[in-house]
Amino acid sequence: MMILGNATVATMVGGYGLIAAGAMVLDGAQVLWVGPEADLPPRFTGHRHDLGGRLVTPALIDCHSHLVFGGHRAVEFEMRLQGASYEAVARAGGGILSTVRATRAATEADLLAAALPRVDQMLAEGVTTIEIKSGYGLDIETELRMLRVARRIGVLRPVHVRTTFLGAHAIPPDYVGRPDDYLAEQAIPALHAAHAEGLVDAVDGFCEGIAFSPAQIARVFAVAQSLGLPVKLHAEQLSNLHGAALAARHGALSADHLEYLDADGAAAMADAGTVAVILPGAFYAIRETRLPPIQLLRDHDVPMAVATDCNPGTSPMTSLCLAMNMACTLFRLTPEEALLGTTTHAARALGLPDRGSIAPGQRADLAIWQASHPAELAYRIGPTPLHSRIFGGRLDA
Amino acid sequence: MMILGNATVATMVGGYGLIAAGAMVLDGAQVLWVGPEADLPPRFTGHRHDLGGRLVTPALIDCHSHLVFGGHRAVEFEMRLQGASYEAVARAGGGILSTVRATRAATEADLLAAALPRVDQMLAEGVTTIEIKSGYGLDIETELRMLRVARRIGVLRPVHVRTTFLGAHAIPPDYVGRPDDYLAEQAIPALHAAHAEGLVDAVDGFCEGIAFSPAQIARVFAVAQSLGLPVKLHAEQLSNLHGAALAARHGALSADHLEYLDADGAAAMADAGTVAVILPGAFYAIRETRLPPIQLLRDHDVPMAVATDCNPGTSPMTSLCLAMNMACTLFRLTPEEALLGTTTHAARALGLPDRGSIAPGQRADLAIWQASHPAELAYRIGPTPLHSRIFGGRLDA
Ligand SMILES: [Zn+2]
Ligand SMILES: [Zn+2]
Repeated sequence: MMILGNATVATMVGGYGLIAAGAMVLDGAQVLWVGPEADLPPRFTGHRHDLGGRLVTPALIDCHSHLVFGGHRAVEFEMRLQGASYEAVARAGGGILSTVRATRAATEADLLAAALPRVDQMLAEGVTTIEIKSGYGLDIETELRMLRVARRIGVLRPVHVRTTFLGAHAIPPDYVGRPDDYLAEQAIPALHAAHAEGLVDAVDGFCEGIAFSPAQIARVFAVAQSLGLPVKLHAEQLSNLHGAALAARHGALSADHLEYLDADGAAAMADAGTVAVILPGAFYAIRETRLPPIQLLRDHDVPMAVATDCNPGTSPMTSLCLAMNMACTLFRLTPEEALLGTTTHAARALGLPDRGSIAPGQRADLAIWQASHPAELAYRIGPTPLHSRIFGGRLDA
Repeated sequence: MMILGNATVATMVGGYGLIAAGAMVLDGAQVLWVGPEADLPPRFTGHRHDLGGRLVTPALIDCHSHLVFGGHRAVEFEMRLQGASYEAVARAGGGILSTVRATRAATEADLLAAALPRVDQMLAEGVTTIEIKSGYGLDIETELRMLRVARRIGVLRPVHVRTTFLGAHAIPPDYVGRPDDYLAEQAIPALHAAHAEGLVDAVDGFCEGIAFSPAQIARVFAVAQSLGLPVKLHAEQLSNLHGAALAARHGALSADHLEYLDADGAAAMADAGTVAVILPGAFYAIRETRLPPIQLLRDHDVPMAVATDCNPGTSPMTSLCLAMNMACTLFRLTPEEALLGTTTHAARALGLPDRGSIAPGQRADLAIWQASHPAELAYRIGPTPLHSRIFGGRLDA
């Protein structure tokens, strides 16, 4: 047993769930007890670490990332700022297909070497669980390679990786105008193959005019459900195709982005217990002006998660703390909502009830901060310095 | 002599000044030679470090920060997001005066301990020169203490600190309605005392309806000039009091913020060679909607610098890379302008002609990045991973 004492504990049970002079007892990979240190039962013995009053929260969870990819899109970013039109950027080979090209050309080792610094930036911010999507292969072989790299990250680093198959992310160049053929010939076979290899924890899609229609997404979801895999959806980011309601009908873990969500969609999510994943990095980067309907989500008691959406095109960021700050600054979430969004609600968005709060029986995944108040984590425009991280009961060196 | 070879060098002379297969020769604390490695004169001998094609830029310079302060303002940030009015926040002790209170209560050791993590975050991003302002003491003793802490940072860390006296930052509670008395009894005596102790490299003020009038700023500037100290000014952030023109008339190094700058102000800055310091973190945090007139500054050939404005109230950030990204995303600077803004133009804003570019005779302050294209530094929403940092010719461990 390990005892962590003299801590300011934000349990994230029903809000901050703050315990001022708190203690935690860890037994192996689990939390055994948490409460005011004055109430610590004497039966718990073990080495006591004095945390000097520091803030402890559940370790952070990034429930929406695309952090395995080839190349970067800095040149395209620059072209746009030099005044190039969308067409000129596309002609120069920019856009998501440039990432598809770079990802297809990259070996497993290349993809891993590029992803690990991003993962390390996240770990340095107290993250212990990261969702990673495929979706830049758009062919069977590369989709599998991306997912293998994602799994490999979880072996090489002290982090829990949840993989999401996102074959229905974009239509590759050789299938332009034939999205159904792409699904039949590449995406769905890739899903079967990846599932057979144990590479898929959930299935996602991009439901949008520039990507896949609700009917096409429903087709992918049907396959997912036949394989017993949970689903989630990029929905209502650029327009309202009623993707959130579609996702809810399939019992989705989450619907993500949601700038154009309407009341019916929010109600459907509430009924289905689907989490709303808020992605302010993409909103900021593409200079979107339509705000996600935060008050509507509150009114319907839809739990909100906050994630980085780490991706090379529309959200080249790795900082969950910055995502929390943006969720507050741009979308007016409270710091408490933002922190629920990267802990308890993020866990729920991944279907992981064993983490995201500090309570007996929960995984001992903890972040110990150079901070004293939980609002600090969303207040800074960027990371709050971390003191240390505990992953499955083990303290990082 | 040290030779750095196989580098992608952005010299930042006249733009990126990119050298593809470049080399640099360092002699002690200076750059002796830079150019294509194929042209490296054989007379230069020394240990050659192969940089593996990595991008090298001048080390970054943060030319506007308030990073020495007591406390934080997370609770106030939270209150505002919970719907509290400005008055309610003020009644609860919030606003800049809460930082003044916390700073006055802090010892030199407290202030140093709080500032060093912020400095370390900056160093991890390739920064080697940081400007640090006083201005949260608003009494003689505390203003001096802040500046001593700033100087101490430059002793404890491999970084060059430039101190700026900012007594004319706000009117302390005991002088409400008596700003001239405050200047006469506290700010100006503090400036004399700090100067006598060698603590002042430049003098700044906040020219705004909620702070000091142009006439009051002129009074402070007159003292600065009598002491031979250069001046700069927080100008045109919330309204147009023609502070930039005032600063220019005093030959200011820079005028900073400038959201409300007009054409006359820009022309005055151009004539005086005053740098425009762009602070997108504060713009973002206070949800300002008035954009600084970037095109006007371009039209007048006013050099633009980009800085963090690191401060606990309106810009609690330490990332110069993020400031560059915000300058591009929010203000439409190009990545090249943003990088000039944290190198050459930032050096100019501090009156330091010996740094900010890679050229013979310049200080060997270099940042070596895990990147290959200089546009990457502004493209990511947060830091690009650093490979290593060279400060005065010495490689960081
Ligand atoms: Zn996404
Ligand atoms: Zn400032």
